[in-house]
Parts: sequence; structure tokens; C-alpha cells
Amino acid sequence: MRIGIVAPSCPITPEMAEQLHQLVGGRAELRIHPQCYLTHGHFAGPDAARADALVEYANDPAIDAIWFARGGYGACRIVEAVLPRLSGVARDKQWMGYSDAGTLLGALYSEGCSRVAHGPMPADLNRRGGEAAVARALDWLVDGRAAACEPSPGRKAAFNITILAHLIGLPWQPELSGHVLLLEEVSEYHYRIDRALAQITAHPGIRRVAGIRLGRCSQIPENDVDFGMDEVAIAEHWCRVSGIPFLGRADIGHDSANKVVPFGR
Amino acid sequence: MRIGIVAPSCPITPEMAEQLHQLVGGRAELRIHPQCYLTHGHFAGPDAARADALVEYANDPAIDAIWFARGGYGACRIVEAVLPRLSGVARDKQWMGYSDAGTLLGALYSEGCSRVAHGPMPADLNRRGGEAAVARALDWLVDGRAAACEPSPGRKAAFNITILAHLIGLPWQPELSGHVLLLEEVSEYHYRIDRALAQITAHPGIRRVAGIRLGRCSQIPENDVDFGMDEVAIAEHWCRVSGIPFLGRADIGHDSANKVVPFGR
Repeated sequence: MRIGIVAPSCPITPEMAEQLHQLVGGRAELRIHPQCYLTHGHFAGPDAARADALVEYANDPAIDAIWFARGGYGACRIVEAVLPRLSGVARDKQWMGYSDAGTLLGALYSEGCSRVAHGPMPADLNRRGGEAAVARALDWLVDGRAAACEPSPGRKAAFNITILAHLIGLPWQPELSGHVLLLEEVSEYHYRIDRALAQITAHPGIRRVAGIRLGRCSQIPENDVDFGMDEVAIAEHWCRVSGIPFLGRADIGHDSANKVVPFGR
Repeated sequence: MRIGIVAPSCPITPEMAEQLHQLVGGRAELRIHPQCYLTHGHFAGPDAARADALVEYANDPAIDAIWFARGGYGACRIVEAVLPRLSGVARDKQWMGYSDAGTLLGALYSEGCSRVAHGPMPADLNRRGGEAAVARALDWLVDGRAAACEPSPGRKAAFNITILAHLIGLPWQPELSGHVLLLEEVSEYHYRIDRALAQITAHPGIRRVAGIRLGRCSQIPENDVDFGMDEVAIAEHWCRVSGIPFLGRADIGHDSANKVVPFGR
């Protein structure tokens, strides 16, 4: 099992890579693209470098899985350039990440990549308890262990709320009819969660999902006037307005407990 | 000339209304809906109250123009409920506002309201020099003075960047093919302006606009890592990527100099 690591958003450090190698041990062979250590503003290198590294590893038949190193911001800047450069090899491999990487997961899924999963990334080693998160990601990537996954019957997909809102209406918005949609958020005001869910649940395609489950919404800044609804009330509201069933909470979020959600299974 | 004022987002105070009456004097008759003074969290009353007031004035043939009182947040919570309740009377009258009210301006324009304008609102009286902004709005609403408007040949439309991003992909996203699109922003990080413009300029419909002009992007918070591009470089980048002509700056923004932009003229 050979896992290629690229950073379409923000960089990781060689120290983190070393920590990752030790944690992975003999479970898999890691190929960490040197692009992961580039810095360009807050990006892991210029757009072209991030796109080229992703395409190189995606189309390399010797690599079984692409694991996004870290979120942050930057995936939306390369997605349109990357998609037409992907070969059938890219469509057949596994993909994993979350947060900003969700832009690519969604676009890859829309392009027929069927082995896409929302789950922990190497940069989760920065979190308290992050080793468990990274080990859980490997449990899925390497061993396909169902215990790593958030249980949910039927087809599913998972996204950061803000990231999905910014995918709405674009040619690479994934078709999610019949899927249970798991959503999580971090560091956004309640009114912004509300606004993003208004857009997501108003889209005619999203109205055909089987339901919405709400993951954790963490580190919500305090508004100067209390919004009057927490994230559960907000999600329930938009489900009611849109006719989408609200199916309760989900064990995903920007934290070490973040479970794996394989798309479409 | 009778102008109806409603608040689909945040409230104004009776003191501001009094100030507005004095400024308007005999130029027009103002009908300020009592809903404008309601408070419900940070909203100008519950969703139903805001929607009902808007529909009431919109469908009242004795009112010539609807002037949105203030932005903030809340228009996207009522837009879907409001649209099917609007009569032909609503389609024939003038509409003006900006910021969060852009959600309604865009949706009204998509529904065939042809006399929609992006321009100052009563709450601009809170700004330094705000009386000039409000007087400019009246110059357009009451007298149709071209001097109140940002000159731009051909059809045009104007939006707050974040507000337009959250309209993308929805049934009430306006058709803007052939329009010059004027965009402005306030209080958003450069990376968020970048992300919103990525979405806006990636939409196939928006790629048919005649060009983009960038208004002021004010009160941009400082990022912990400098983004490396200012708002002009960001707009130029996305215009280059999308093939949309970048047509320079526009004299609009969250300030007292904000010029009027009548849609589609």
C-alpha cells in the first residue's frame, strides 16, 4: 500500500512528516511530495506547484491513495485547472481529507472518483489526541476497517459547511441526490452558518438528499448580539424550510474524534 | 412620490426615522413600516414579520418605491417565502438597497422586477457624510438624476461580493449575461474575498457577464500571514482565470460615496 501525500491548501513541516512516518511505521509506504513543504504566503507553494504535485501523484499508477496533508485555504484556487488533467488512474484510487480539501473531494466525486472519503489528515497531528485521528485514517485507507467510519446506512457524503456552500452552483458541484449529507463547521459565527445552510439547502440538487446530519460546529465566535439559535436549531430550521429530513448529529468535526465518511457507499 | 421603507435584515431606530423625515422634507412622502423598529435577536423582527411587511408594501399600489432601511443579515432567510407572494404591482415599482439587501435585489431582478437599484439606504445616516449618501439615493429614486449613478455604459448590476457568492446556484440567482458586474466588499479577509470571487467567476452564467468592475473593499481584517494579493490583484486573477474582462474600479462601497447602480439599464 503506497500513500501519496500532497498539500493543495497549506503546508506541513518536515518535522510533522517525520512524526507521521514514525506513526505509520510498516503499515504503509508514504510518499510525501516535497511540494508539501513549500510556502507561498499561507499556501503550500504557488497555485501551479500545488496543482502539478496533485496531478503528478494522482496519475501515478504506483500510488494507491492520495491523502491531503492539511486544510486551511487554497484548494478552490486549483480545482478547475486540476480536473481536466486527471487520468483514469486518478479515478480509481482512494482519496482522503476534509475541511478545505472538501472542495477537491466534492469535485473528484463529481468527476466519477468513487473512492473518496472525508476523514482525518496528517496535520491533525497538531491536535491533542491527533495520533488517534491519524491512526483512524490509516485504519480506513490501509485496512478498510468499518470501525473507522461514522456509521450511516445508504449513500453518504460529508463536508465542511462553508466549503460546500462555495461549491454550490459550480460545474464541479457533486450530485448528492439520495445521499445522507453530513456537515460540520469550525470558527464561523452562527449567522454565517445560517447563511451558508440557507444557500446549501435552497439548491434544487441538495433538496434531493436523503437527509442532513450535523457534525460538530466548534470554536464559534461570540456574536455581539446573540444569534438566538444554536447550530442544531439552525440546521433544523433549514431542513424544515427545504423539506430535507434532519437526521440528528454526526461524529465528525475539526477535532481528533473526526470519523471517516466514505462517499457514496 | 411615495416611498415605502421596510427592513428585511436589521432594524433602524425611531430617532433615525425622524432624522430621515427631516432630510427628505417635501421631496417625497415616506411610509416607514413599523416593522423597521422591531427587534428579534439582531433581526428587525421574526422572519414572518419581515416577510409580511415587505410583501404588504411591495403589493400596495399606492407605494411607488421600496427602499430597504438597512443591511446586516437576514434577507436570505425570507427571500424564498417572499417571491411567490409578489404581485405585478411589486414588479413595476422601484427598489433600492445594498449589502445584505442585495439578496432581494438579485432575486427581484431574476423575477422580472426591472427597476432595481444598488444604492444608499436610510441606515447610511449612521455614517460620517451619510446625509449626502441618502440625498443621492433620493436624487435617483425621486428625480431619476443620472448624476447620482456610477456611470457605466450598457446593462449593469452591483452586489456585495459575499452576498452574490451566496446567491450562486439558487433558483433566484439573477441572469446577468451581458451585464457589467460591479462588486464591493466590507469586513472580509482577503482570503474570503478570493474564495467568494472564485465561486462567482466559476459559475457558467457569470462567465457571460460583459466585465467586472471592483468597488471599494473596506475594513479588511489583517491576516496572520499576509495574503500576498490585495483586492485588485485578486479580482484581476479571477477575471484572467475565467475569461471575464476586468474593467477597473467602481465608485461603490460600504461608505457615503457609494453611487447608485440601476440594474440592467
